[in-house]
Amino acid sequence: MGRAARWRDALGACGTIGVMESRTTSFTTGGREVVLDLTADAARFLADVGAREGLLHVFVPHATAGLAILETGAGSDDDLLAALGDLLPADDRWRHRHGSRGHGRSHVLPALVPPYASIPVIDGAMAFGTWQSLCLVDLNVDNTVRDVRFSFLAG
Amino acid sequence: MGRAARWRDALGACGTIGVMESRTTSFTTGGREVVLDLTADAARFLADVGAREGLLHVFVPHATAGLAILETGAGSDDDLLAALGDLLPADDRWRHRHGSRGHGRSHVLPALVPPYASIPVIDGAMAFGTWQSLCLVDLNVDNTVRDVRFSFLAG
Amino acid sequence: MGRAARWRDALGACGTIGVMESRTTSFTTGGREVVLDLTADAARFLADVGAREGLLHVFVPHATAGLAILETGAGSDDDLLAALGDLLPADDRWRHRHGSRGHGRSHVLPALVPPYASIPVIDGAMAFGTWQSLCLVDLNVDNTVRDVRFSFLAG
Repeated sequence: MGRAARWRDALGACGTIGVMESRTTSFTTGGREVVLDLTADAARFLADVGAREGLLHVFVPHATAGLAILETGAGSDDDLLAALGDLLPADDRWRHRHGSRGHGRSHVLPALVPPYASIPVIDGAMAFGTWQSLCLVDLNVDNTVRDVRFSFLAG
Repeated sequence: MGRAARWRDALGACGTIGVMESRTTSFTTGGREVVLDLTADAARFLADVGAREGLLHVFVPHATAGLAILETGAGSDDDLLAALGDLLPADDRWRHRHGSRGHGRSHVLPALVPPYASIPVIDGAMAFGTWQSLCLVDLNVDNTVRDVRFSFLAG
Repeated sequence: MGRAARWRDALGACGTIGVMESRTTSFTTGGREVVLDLTADAARFLADVGAREGLLHVFVPHATAGLAILETGAGSDDDLLAALGDLLPADDRWRHRHGSRGHGRSHVLPALVPPYASIPVIDGAMAFGTWQSLCLVDLNVDNTVRDVRFSFLAG
């Protein structure tokens, strides 16, 4: 066993030092535009890997979805969908066209609402403000199940 | 003391290897829309923690503010506020409504201008181009003080 | 040699544990708006540094360019440029004005399409979905060569 491998094993034995923990979870988004709150799932991931201090990285391995940190449950989720309806209209302007009308807008979404997010983890919890939630943003009505990858880089 | 704890302590003794440094600083944004340049504060944080190589992570623990990397002082800060005035108008369209007129736009902002940013650190300095600055973007006229969390992950 | 330096050297000897690998590559974008696919270049960087598990961080050290994760080659690159033409028009509205008409829009772009991106690396490869590509987004027709910094933080 080489020096690097020995170090890797030794560090790996520490659980959260020097090893990125990562897993993918599937979510049902259904056949409609959604802002889906993932905060509880992210917290469960952090607990499962025994995270203490570091960075939570969230990634959506899809070309037609994004992640946003928002307040949910007070109208802003619908406000975001309405704003995206104005900024990226579901009409026939898009060159990338197949599936439902306006599908091409979902392919532009990730440039404005990125498919990644990163959040500091302090004492095992996301360092969120009171009203912040981690959300999946999905305008794609043709894709009803989405994967989300949670990764934790120990600091 | 277990193996993980011994490793953690040993690595912690190195200062910038294997330990995420993190602190929160308050900024006065006042009762108007602002693009506030945080570059000097970020550089001070990196110096204080003795950062050399790694990733600077910046996070705003508020649901109505974002971070952007922009040129400041040459009109683009005002251009950004004007563009956001067009894209997210301060009118009565928003379901989330309380406080000043159009407040709901501030809750949609973080989907388009995320509350996090990450910047490579090389030789202790942010690897910025000549005209780049780290900025807090705050349309919220009802909240006059904002926290910003700076974290450094040593590479 | 102090304790921190000894640790750093020991960890550095491992190649991908505890050391951020980082390098900058130049790309010719020419005198037109472009969405330039950088996926193959990012994969080459990961191979060159022997990346296994961790986070790929990509950064553009320019105040007038951004990064997006998109499907390319099926119309969405042009759809994004068209959408940005509507959202940030190339007209005379911008205070920051020099060079080509509408140049000021390129300085607002990085607030909406950030100059950074981060992607999990699993088994040496970006954990992309089938249709995702890493792209440089550049509306600036006056700047024909761009630098991109690839960094790898081993997990």
